Amino acid sequence: MAENVWWRDVKGILLDITGVLYEPGENGGSVVQGSLNAVKRLKEAGIPVRFCTNETSCTKKQFVNQLKSYGFDIELSKIFSPIPAVCAILKKRNLRPFLFVSPNALDDFEGIDTNDPNCIVVGDCNHDFSYKNMNKAFQLLKSLPNPILFSLGRGKYYQDNGKLLLDVGPYMKALEYACDITAEVVGKPSTDFFQAALNDLNVPANKVVMIGDDIVNDIGGAQAVGMKGVLVSTGKYRPEDKYHSTVKADGYSTNLSEAVDLILSNY
Amino acid sequence: MAENVWWRDVKGILLDITGVLYEPGENGGSVVQGSLNAVKRLKEAGIPVRFCTNETSCTKKQFVNQLKSYGFDIELSKIFSPIPAVCAILKKRNLRPFLFVSPNALDDFEGIDTNDPNCIVVGDCNHDFSYKNMNKAFQLLKSLPNPILFSLGRGKYYQDNGKLLLDVGPYMKALEYACDITAEVVGKPSTDFFQAALNDLNVPANKVVMIGDDIVNDIGGAQAVGMKGVLVSTGKYRPEDKYHSTVKADGYSTNLSEAVDLILSNY
Repeated sequence: MAENVWWRDVKGILLDITGVLYEPGENGGSVVQGSLNAVKRLKEAGIPVRFCTNETSCTKKQFVNQLKSYGFDIELSKIFSPIPAVCAILKKRNLRPFLFVSPNALDDFEGIDTNDPNCIVVGDCNHDFSYKNMNKAFQLLKSLPNPILFSLGRGKYYQDNGKLLLDVGPYMKALEYACDITAEVVGKPSTDFFQAALNDLNVPANKVVMIGDDIVNDIGGAQAVGMKGVLVSTGKYRPEDKYHSTVKADGYSTNLSEAVDLILSNY
Repeated sequence: MAENVWWRDVKGILLDITGVLYEPGENGGSVVQGSLNAVKRLKEAGIPVRFCTNETSCTKKQFVNQLKSYGFDIELSKIFSPIPAVCAILKKRNLRPFLFVSPNALDDFEGIDTNDPNCIVVGDCNHDFSYKNMNKAFQLLKSLPNPILFSLGRGKYYQDNGKLLLDVGPYMKALEYACDITAEVVGKPSTDFFQAALNDLNVPANKVVMIGDDIVNDIGGAQAVGMKGVLVSTGKYRPEDKYHSTVKADGYSTNLSEAVDLILSNY
């Protein structure tokens, strides 16, 4: 039925970055074919776009500069990422975190009081997910009368240099299990996170399409706030994602470029 | 009610080792006060005893020698531990594991074919629970059409040198989550594992008491096969264990010595 196709009447777009705009890898990774031009065409068409990423391995500024080095001209203010979101929560709730995050990302926590910590923020730590560091986080959580764990996303894995690598999610699960707690997830697929990006777009949810490579965190998360979700076959995408037990995408595209073609030809 | 006291009519005993007989720590750890004598008294009384441990950080022989060095005279055949149990399963099901275990424990897998692995065995790895090794295990599981993960226990943490350290359980959970699978637990609290020790004791379950410091893996596991479970206040024990959400011990003892006093005075 033509009325049900996902690309009709799209008035706003949310884009995942890693695996959709570029593929991480050695020597800086590489741009996903057609994505540079696709982002440019969306801008020229004047369709509102925001970027939703769970990237926490560096500061937001470093991330934008990295995207610039690929040729993407993306404003800092258009990117929604977990660190600013968790900083707002920490301030609001007067919490002092132990930052179990990549040393490269620490600058984005400026102004956050980390003395005498009463909660933990865990982000993508890569090789810093050592037994020693995991025990440090675990022991702190065990020592707190009211242990609070914020997880910057709950992704299972991402693709780097053609290989799947563990993301923050499995380590969040390890700490949850060890301490009998449930983490508060900040970033995709949190409803609050998608809602904040949606509010900034100022477009009704049912006219917004989220395009990503993660069936649960991109597609499932977007659908939970009423947006459509389109899964691309780049990044961490695997064919079995089309048969996920709980999440079914509204559409599938080979890559971002193909999805943008469909959207713009109907805009 | 006198009829309900746990120490009446005990005809067989299962003993946890770590945290009950000795406390691990630097310079070889230390014997739990009174435990040497308690084990000796049980032997003299002629009451059947078996030892149930999830220890996988060394070979069974090294472990017995370590116990000997503390002064415990325990036969190899009286110890039930996860590695021999998983080896029997691997052979029976014709599986070839990738051994994600401590290098010190490898000798106990002698005769197990590890070429072209089609499953994973994860045990307590301590500092070998690195990001690199976790990814190796994850990538293998992701590559298998029918991923199988055996976990040698699912303990959350243990106490070493007075500090709580992460056990294999949280890492099992991390791999389960990353790969959307459920591990097969070999060792405590698996019913098969307790049943094997019970069969060897050759005493009806309701006349056997398990004495341990882990409310879930010792007490809960023993109760699941019909034994009584007594929690000691040594090892990893924490006061909140008495208020566990799902497991309630049949009795509490300050330490093994006190529990043995009660048992023998009614034997």
